[in-house]
Amino acid sequence: MLSKSQISLLTSLQQKKFRREHGLFLVEGNKSISEFIDSPYSIHTIYHTYGNAPKMLNLSQKINLQEISLNELQKVSLLKTPADAIATIRIPQDSAIDVSNLQKGFSLVLDGVQDPGNMGTIIRTADWFGINRIICSDDTVDVYNPKVVQATMGSLARVNVSYTDLRTFISKAGVPVFGALLNGNNIYTTDFGTHGLIVMGNEGNGIRPEIQPLITRSVTIPRVGAAESLNVGVATAIFCSELTAKTFK
Amino acid sequence: MLSKSQISLLTSLQQKKFRREHGLFLVEGNKSISEFIDSPYSIHTIYHTYGNAPKMLNLSQKINLQEISLNELQKVSLLKTPADAIATIRIPQDSAIDVSNLQKGFSLVLDGVQDPGNMGTIIRTADWFGINRIICSDDTVDVYNPKVVQATMGSLARVNVSYTDLRTFISKAGVPVFGALLNGNNIYTTDFGTHGLIVMGNEGNGIRPEIQPLITRSVTIPRVGAAESLNVGVATAIFCSELTAKTFK
Repeated sequence: MLSKSQISLLTSLQQKKFRREHGLFLVEGNKSISEFIDSPYSIHTIYHTYGNAPKMLNLSQKINLQEISLNELQKVSLLKTPADAIATIRIPQDSAIDVSNLQKGFSLVLDGVQDPGNMGTIIRTADWFGINRIICSDDTVDVYNPKVVQATMGSLARVNVSYTDLRTFISKAGVPVFGALLNGNNIYTTDFGTHGLIVMGNEGNGIRPEIQPLITRSVTIPRVGAAESLNVGVATAIFCSELTAKTFK
Repeated sequence: MLSKSQISLLTSLQQKKFRREHGLFLVEGNKSISEFIDSPYSIHTIYHTYGNAPKMLNLSQKINLQEISLNELQKVSLLKTPADAIATIRIPQDSAIDVSNLQKGFSLVLDGVQDPGNMGTIIRTADWFGINRIICSDDTVDVYNPKVVQATMGSLARVNVSYTDLRTFISKAGVPVFGALLNGNNIYTTDFGTHGLIVMGNEGNGIRPEIQPLITRSVTIPRVGAAESLNVGVATAIFCSELTAKTFK
């Protein structure tokens, strides 16, 4: 049984303002929730329907479990057909980005990505390709937006996403900065080396002019046909894939 | 000024049943509409707001132009912030797939893709990589669904999409059949040759069991990290990218 104040809390978490105020975000479905149980995230409460208490309980953290009706779940869910459970999870403290870590492997940098579906797909794709650091401009869509969380399919539990002033961050990074730009080097013949940043731009405008001078190597996915552009989630995936491809050739 | 029956026609076209009945589908925004004007598609009517009649008129086809108010456009639009125009375009007759054409280049085959956003992204990506044939199982999402059309960003005007019984089609295709499956050959070391079909499966279930025996070469995007799967739009893009990559190496 959900109290009025619980319903009000859960629905308020659809808005960034209240997520920040309460320090909580929503994850739907036991499948995704279980990924967070097995992660450094701290779970506040899991609201589950009858018989659907999550099975994989990490005993090192105390989790509130509360049984609710399917009707109640539908009331607080954003999904058309809510699955079995919804959880409130604590938003981790922003930690400073450890620049020395950037010497190992690749990090994605997102300059103003706006669409929650794109953001979620990028996190899921990064997780597939073993990239676990994403650094975003302050105006990139909030990673704790429920639509982003949903689209990550649980991958958010494993990929570290932080927000910062990109100009300052990139200037101090001290690693190669690859950027997805038009008229750059052909991605298929680019030597990415062993580490660096991969900067992807906003859906409509690409990488903003203030950031472009910080890019040490502009890289282009060559167009064979006629589409004007690629979706940013697709373009990011092709970059991740190419970084991986080199290790198999 | 839109008549009641026009409003009713335009809103009915959001449903597949009425699209089939009227033989029409919707395209929003002059940018996308202009791609259809420059294509084999036949435009029925363009409803545009004041000062926004499309500029690029192909004189070889007679197009009805009708000025409407922004308020009227908002009434019939599916977009949050409708742009400048909405057009009704004739659904082309289903033509038989010319199997002899399959000897040239690659065609995508979609086995039950359901999400309109994924379908649209796949068409846009195919267009970028110069793949202009997509063959879909009969239960794949309707390509004339307004959300699909929107997500193609005009690329639908250039990519031929047809629906058929995939088992019969693939059996008679007479070309190599590559399929995205788990535990297949590593995509980065696969020799795709010069032509063939690339079969992609449904979001949740992949390629269905009846189709799998028809695949002559199963291909896998190797997982480096931990995500359970890739989005089908992303996976298709990586296949398209790899086909292109070979031509640059």
